[in-house]
Amino acid sequence: MSDTVKYLLDEQHLPRHWYNINADLPVPLDPVLHPGTQQPITADDLAVIFPRAVIEQEMSTEREIEIPEPVREVYRQWRPAPLYRARRLEKALRTPAKIYYKYEGVSPAGSHKPNTAIPQAFYNKQEGVKRITTETGAGQWGSSLALAGSMFGLEIVVYMVKVSFHHKPYRRAFMETFGAQCIASPSETTASGRAILAEHPDSTGSLGIAISEAVELAAQRDDTKYALGSVLNHVLLHQTITGIEAQQQLEMAGDYPDLVIGCTGGGSNFAGLAFPFLGEKLRGGRDVELIAVEPSACPTLTKGVFAYDYGDTAKLTPLVRMYTLGSSFVPPGFHAGGLRYHGMAPQISHLTKLGYITPTSYNQLDCFAAGIQFAKAEGIIPAPEANHAVKAAIIEAEKCRESGESKTILFNLCGHGNFDMQAYTDYLAGKLKDLTYAEDEVAMALAGLPSVA
Amino acid sequence: MSDTVKYLLDEQHLPRHWYNINADLPVPLDPVLHPGTQQPITADDLAVIFPRAVIEQEMSTEREIEIPEPVREVYRQWRPAPLYRARRLEKALRTPAKIYYKYEGVSPAGSHKPNTAIPQAFYNKQEGVKRITTETGAGQWGSSLALAGSMFGLEIVVYMVKVSFHHKPYRRAFMETFGAQCIASPSETTASGRAILAEHPDSTGSLGIAISEAVELAAQRDDTKYALGSVLNHVLLHQTITGIEAQQQLEMAGDYPDLVIGCTGGGSNFAGLAFPFLGEKLRGGRDVELIAVEPSACPTLTKGVFAYDYGDTAKLTPLVRMYTLGSSFVPPGFHAGGLRYHGMAPQISHLTKLGYITPTSYNQLDCFAAGIQFAKAEGIIPAPEANHAVKAAIIEAEKCRESGESKTILFNLCGHGNFDMQAYTDYLAGKLKDLTYAEDEVAMALAGLPSVA
Repeated sequence: MSDTVKYLLDEQHLPRHWYNINADLPVPLDPVLHPGTQQPITADDLAVIFPRAVIEQEMSTEREIEIPEPVREVYRQWRPAPLYRARRLEKALRTPAKIYYKYEGVSPAGSHKPNTAIPQAFYNKQEGVKRITTETGAGQWGSSLALAGSMFGLEIVVYMVKVSFHHKPYRRAFMETFGAQCIASPSETTASGRAILAEHPDSTGSLGIAISEAVELAAQRDDTKYALGSVLNHVLLHQTITGIEAQQQLEMAGDYPDLVIGCTGGGSNFAGLAFPFLGEKLRGGRDVELIAVEPSACPTLTKGVFAYDYGDTAKLTPLVRMYTLGSSFVPPGFHAGGLRYHGMAPQISHLTKLGYITPTSYNQLDCFAAGIQFAKAEGIIPAPEANHAVKAAIIEAEKCRESGESKTILFNLCGHGNFDMQAYTDYLAGKLKDLTYAEDEVAMALAGLPSVA
Repeated sequence: MSDTVKYLLDEQHLPRHWYNINADLPVPLDPVLHPGTQQPITADDLAVIFPRAVIEQEMSTEREIEIPEPVREVYRQWRPAPLYRARRLEKALRTPAKIYYKYEGVSPAGSHKPNTAIPQAFYNKQEGVKRITTETGAGQWGSSLALAGSMFGLEIVVYMVKVSFHHKPYRRAFMETFGAQCIASPSETTASGRAILAEHPDSTGSLGIAISEAVELAAQRDDTKYALGSVLNHVLLHQTITGIEAQQQLEMAGDYPDLVIGCTGGGSNFAGLAFPFLGEKLRGGRDVELIAVEPSACPTLTKGVFAYDYGDTAKLTPLVRMYTLGSSFVPPGFHAGGLRYHGMAPQISHLTKLGYITPTSYNQLDCFAAGIQFAKAEGIIPAPEANHAVKAAIIEAEKCRESGESKTILFNLCGHGNFDMQAYTDYLAGKLKDLTYAEDEVAMALAGLPSVA
């Protein structure tokens, strides 16, 4: 059999728990600090913007956290998600490596993001919340929360980075089809938006600005909370369903990964796939190498510093210790919009600092070329974000061709490219360029990092 | 359990045969006629544009036709496709009806079209063909054949209706990502294209014209054949995998449909789901009602005549007896591009004429409203074509609410709307209008039907 092989779990194997890596960390995470007092934050501080159940998960050190049955009900529509052996790609690469990919594009929103949007909507609904605010860059997260809001009867307000709002009208249409409100950020609807617009009337926005607006709106009304699509512990926790499924699927295949690869913007799809395997290793189980792939133009893990920083531009969020390029840094407009964030999940930052994760970075042209090579072999056009993982997997498979090793490579194909065809159009027309970040802008952003006592 | 329920077959239940309804027709189909001689066409006549294996299937009356293993290998990437019980939609409609939908949007091209693109590419490859030409309207068929060409190493040339070529650049990018060539039709590359352009330099094209160009190009070179994405017997045959899977899945659910519903352009997704059930009925099994749903603006079954006509504008194709609005009729530019065809599959036409299929039609605004209602309940945004089936299913479920009957309704959700978000954008902005066909144009097209001896 030389073709793609699919490993599909039946529903009785849909995981009943998420995996919390905080239970197995060799050194605990640094505390999250209140932005005002710079003292460790309390559950009460967070309760202004998050529901209690989410805050508990954010702070938990329990290894297994139960997935509520109503969440599993919705997950069942597309989960367990398939794991594929990329035999056609292996053949095209003439590699002895075994390449597996977990495909999260099967969700109705086309990415891994509903894995956390659904439980976040559920917990908010359970606690009587009527409205959730959030931000979105490329639109995958906003689409997913819009979908989740529709499933649980919640009003959703999405601040979409202005440049994406205009470049990706179909993502906006997707959200509005599910009844969500989608606002171009910076906007006149918040003080933080108005402040930016007063200074930069032509601002095209950033995730940091959009987060400020969403958090501000959530803090204004008791019936409104805020949801974040990446970075935080509870988000990474919800994504571990992908890795737990993949563990079972690889067991069906009689295999175990030597390498687990994912692209990293805020870090959630990478962590979701990698943490269950890393947990095994941390508990004395099998060794595994983890590769986090970021764009060269927003090289948080590879060029950032490990420091306390804000999650947003207006400095409304708590301070977390993470790799960061500085919360005032605005990355250039490359196409993998989901990877344009100045920071990185504290858990991933911490584990990278401890040496458990190897970060690497690639330019967008190389990533698009890899994505097209993948599509021609495997039939699926990846999202530009996912192309970074594809690129790294191909590089590793090519190393195996040179060395003759037959490594088992697992990567997260975190979404399809159906809403990103303009990027492919530009690439195929030779119009796409590699972008670099301005070193002086990062230096300035880093110079502005808060000094933490 | 009040939520959506998924019925997923494991791979060992992936069908090994397609179902050929020609074996069970109470009255055989009228012969296909040579466009020149008006005599019944021979396999040799067809061999100029089709591979032998496909011609055999086109003419076969065997009930079961084996699916080649290399085709099943590729199918396995996304098949068996899920069958869902739409419990959330049922609840929203407060209907005692049970609504099931077969979801074909899980294919890499996002629709049911790869079900026939894959075997057609396979048979061509097997017979040494190097290049396949085809036409596409909205782009779903062209995308699927591009994908299939990439899987089997074939060159693909797609003539895309010019208006869609410009309105749907992302479908073109999709095809080009898989290495296919996509040409706006009418074009200067063929005599039939040049003839149209000479008379109508601003022609926006039609499926009929694009078919003429693709057939002409295929007839020119021995290493080139032509592929059609709907209408013909072998295409409908390949699509029956959906109905055969659905039969097994409904058996898992302990249910059987009272109604099977599909949208009809050329007829392939409807036939694919409905024919296996109709075959049961024709062989003396359970009764089932079949509803074919078409757009009011291209009402082939509901307003056309049952007559011999050409499949294309330039009259290059054989003559088939079918419901038709006349091969020179160009329907107005509504959004369900896949339903803009002047004719209807001969098998469907024949069975409609015999009373086994009930045709109906809806306007596009009603269909979009139904699609959005479906999306909000079930989480999937349907393709504009599929919205026609959704609309009919909702109407039938509402009838059950009135009558108190608990009918079992099965419909084909033949594709997702990811590449059709402009239509949703226009609908949500109130810019979409209901379109009507010009009765005088249909009258003129019908007046020009060939007189068949």
